[in-house]
Amino acid sequence: MTTTTSEQIRNGVDTAQLFGTLDAIKADPSLATFRFRARNRWVDGAHNRTTIQDFYAAGGEDISRAEPFVLDAGEPPILLGTNQGPNPAEYLLHALAACLTTSLVYVAAARGVHLSEVESTLEGEMDVQGALGLSDDYRNGFERIRVGFRVRGDAPEEKLREIVARAQRRSAVFDMVTNGVPVEVEVES
Amino acid sequence: MTTTTSEQIRNGVDTAQLFGTLDAIKADPSLATFRFRARNRWVDGAHNRTTIQDFYAAGGEDISRAEPFVLDAGEPPILLGTNQGPNPAEYLLHALAACLTTSLVYVAAARGVHLSEVESTLEGEMDVQGALGLSDDYRNGFERIRVGFRVRGDAPEEKLREIVARAQRRSAVFDMVTNGVPVEVEVES
Repeated sequence: MTTTTSEQIRNGVDTAQLFGTLDAIKADPSLATFRFRARNRWVDGAHNRTTIQDFYAAGGEDISRAEPFVLDAGEPPILLGTNQGPNPAEYLLHALAACLTTSLVYVAAARGVHLSEVESTLEGEMDVQGALGLSDDYRNGFERIRVGFRVRGDAPEEKLREIVARAQRRSAVFDMVTNGVPVEVEVES
Repeated sequence: MTTTTSEQIRNGVDTAQLFGTLDAIKADPSLATFRFRARNRWVDGAHNRTTIQDFYAAGGEDISRAEPFVLDAGEPPILLGTNQGPNPAEYLLHALAACLTTSLVYVAAARGVHLSEVESTLEGEMDVQGALGLSDDYRNGFERIRVGFRVRGDAPEEKLREIVARAQRRSAVFDMVTNGVPVEVEVES
């Protein structure tokens, strides 16, 4: 029989399921392979659209999503678009914010800390002479990203800071954005 | 007087504006500083929400967006969520797809190539023993990302491939994802 106690659900995370998942993967590490996917199609100008639905996890294709997620990307007029959506660099900031936040919430749940508020503000600065091909003195992307967190919960400030630090050490997107990932691009002929 | 010819708009990109922007930045490189931002707020469990609106560009705050873009992130049930949105790693794939595509479309416009179709499929593979803290043998993020492009236009295949290669060399998100970016995290006390 499955019972759910109020202590089991912490920060909206089912900690029994969390520890059960960890145990299942410890028992069979082959379950740990995940493959996430995105399909993008150009619409017009700076406007393109990604659909996200299927992924591979725990030994099989996941079918939990009845409908795909649809994401529109665009550019503001100063970058020759019409604000058809956030621009790609802004989506990267969102991916980073979301991953750090979820990692933080899960770490807090596992450690018995109830959070009441988590907010973050991110800013990335770039000199577009790089991406526009005008100067080799500047990289194409952000020179740096600054993240400010505001975290409230039923733990001392020091513990909350430790949880934020742990979230950084475990976040998939923080790892990718800070350390980089090999990317292979193929063109279908 | 501003006139627009059919040749001026190529792939939905106003090439006169494109070259005008390049000339303006060449004349005053201080216009090239851009700062993009995202604000994220935890909702519950794996669910958090980012708003994106203002940014700094060309010497001032941009006010072209009357309303913010709102993005929801979540996790599938196997990662303890309820599919409240794409997950953060999927958003990173989308950011990469969108940036490569826009770069490709702009490069083609600048070079006089009319595109008829641009599609891409991305897949990133990870072993979640890393992010779950179960093993130090695996990184937290994707081990690699594979991108497949299908590009059609009024240029020979070799030229289209060259445009894809140029897009990689100029894409802001491709740079960040492949090379990494310094990220500073501060916690407000």
